[in-house]
Amino acid sequence: MRFELTLLGTNSALPAYGRFPTAQVLNIQEKLYLIDCGEGAQIRMGQFGLRQAKISQAFISHLHGDHIYGLIGWLTSLALINRQEPLDIFAPEGLEEIIRVQLKYTGGLPYSLSFYTIDPSRHSLIFEDKRVAIFSLPLAHRIPASGFLFREKEKARNIRPDCIEAYQIPFQAIPGIKAGNDYQLEDGRLIPNADLTLDPPKPRTYAFCSDTAYHEPLIPLIQGVDLLYHESTFCDDLVDIAAETGHSTARQAATIALKAGVARLVLGHYSSRYPSLEPFLLEARSVFPNTELGVDGASFEVPLQGRG
Amino acid sequence: MRFELTLLGTNSALPAYGRFPTAQVLNIQEKLYLIDCGEGAQIRMGQFGLRQAKISQAFISHLHGDHIYGLIGWLTSLALINRQEPLDIFAPEGLEEIIRVQLKYTGGLPYSLSFYTIDPSRHSLIFEDKRVAIFSLPLAHRIPASGFLFREKEKARNIRPDCIEAYQIPFQAIPGIKAGNDYQLEDGRLIPNADLTLDPPKPRTYAFCSDTAYHEPLIPLIQGVDLLYHESTFCDDLVDIAAETGHSTARQAATIALKAGVARLVLGHYSSRYPSLEPFLLEARSVFPNTELGVDGASFEVPLQGRG
Repeated sequence: MRFELTLLGTNSALPAYGRFPTAQVLNIQEKLYLIDCGEGAQIRMGQFGLRQAKISQAFISHLHGDHIYGLIGWLTSLALINRQEPLDIFAPEGLEEIIRVQLKYTGGLPYSLSFYTIDPSRHSLIFEDKRVAIFSLPLAHRIPASGFLFREKEKARNIRPDCIEAYQIPFQAIPGIKAGNDYQLEDGRLIPNADLTLDPPKPRTYAFCSDTAYHEPLIPLIQGVDLLYHESTFCDDLVDIAAETGHSTARQAATIALKAGVARLVLGHYSSRYPSLEPFLLEARSVFPNTELGVDGASFEVPLQGRG
Repeated sequence: MRFELTLLGTNSALPAYGRFPTAQVLNIQEKLYLIDCGEGAQIRMGQFGLRQAKISQAFISHLHGDHIYGLIGWLTSLALINRQEPLDIFAPEGLEEIIRVQLKYTGGLPYSLSFYTIDPSRHSLIFEDKRVAIFSLPLAHRIPASGFLFREKEKARNIRPDCIEAYQIPFQAIPGIKAGNDYQLEDGRLIPNADLTLDPPKPRTYAFCSDTAYHEPLIPLIQGVDLLYHESTFCDDLVDIAAETGHSTARQAATIALKAGVARLVLGHYSSRYPSLEPFLLEARSVFPNTELGVDGASFEVPLQGRG
């Protein structure tokens, strides 16, 4: 029952200091969701042992090159390994044109590729499956850009094994009890569901916020998430450049994390002006202690937790 | 007076086993020429310490993704570091459309970008500057594809320092003598140029042949080159697949090298079916001993040589 983020690239704009541009994979219960796809994402997937066949949806935040230039290479590599399963791409308007022009020269794909246009100005549900619901998060960048909120679906209640034994509950009755039914014994006694089951674990949440200036309207949308990735392109020494370019500083990322009451903050999207990342961590932790540096290849797991 | 090839990527189709797709840089007298630009080429340039600002021309063999998908990322990164110098791209028809569509979303470039269409069916001069003349080499692939022959320009003759001293040759006369003039002494004696100068070093040559099936028409075009890169996507165990897909085996690459009487062969463009490259080397060396494995980051220098 994994819920784990792996960072494929953590630099902004151009690759530097061994840091690739933005791309991430979120593993939810062994299904993988791709988030942005900067150049070299497929190389990183190979290096970090991520199984590309398990990805059926990709979510692209905006059309700046450092978030999309790895996409065409990955799509054609999937063709070369003869992928058959359909693939869905969720992105702001324009990406389909960019990809289709290139595919015209590459030739067709052996799998069905669908594009779904997202409106980065709205916070809305853009995709759901049995594991997760995914929402857009309007960001404040130079071009239309959307973050993504991944909210795990509520799981069925857990039936207590000791009750199955004690009440001799037959196999066929279990799905109903997990769904919330009470159980009637042969002698007519009704055992309330609350005595038979335990609360399921809390659904887990991940919010991806890149690229964006300091943007307080995000706070209510990401309130209390288990894991927040918030871009920190600069440190506070360059707060003016951050504002001009539609980016955040580490201090601003940490302030959003603090105000949104998230459990854990991961930084990334560092400017190539910074060879060392230590200043980002120190600056963010002074505001929000539970901050970690995102680095290429790092994974962040959100464990299952009971309801406190 | 360097003449040195550096391999940025040596895998075919998709990146695997730490091998990036095709891209190379040829350093001729400290000017760099980019040859193909597979995904991650800019990452490799950074890793291998190649100064991108020294590139003014890029030569693209064909429009398969593993030879071009690194181009847009590199071009936009040059914009981000505020390149001002013009850049020329030589490629078969279609590349300009692929790049321009993407630039439409990225925004303009601060430098002038020009595309020159090459005709892969012809062997002809496609570019020259004071250092080098570059010729297309028609290849036999599934789509139009051109190799490239780099032929260093003939240098001026070397004036013998002992003659300058002995004949008291004034500074102003030297360029004429280097260009082949005789020199008349004050007493009327004519000293023939052959007594005053030494032959310049031999112009050096590099031929890039990828992607191509075994193709004997290449042999006269690359006769006697100092350095030949010839693709070897497969070993001879898959010679039929090589033929079907328009590729060569290591044995075929070595046979071309042997028949063309080249000095040195470098292999590359390996299929991901081969985790280890040892079989390529053994197979090629059994035909052409002076073969080396191309690996990402390897450099091959052609030293200056006198005329034998």
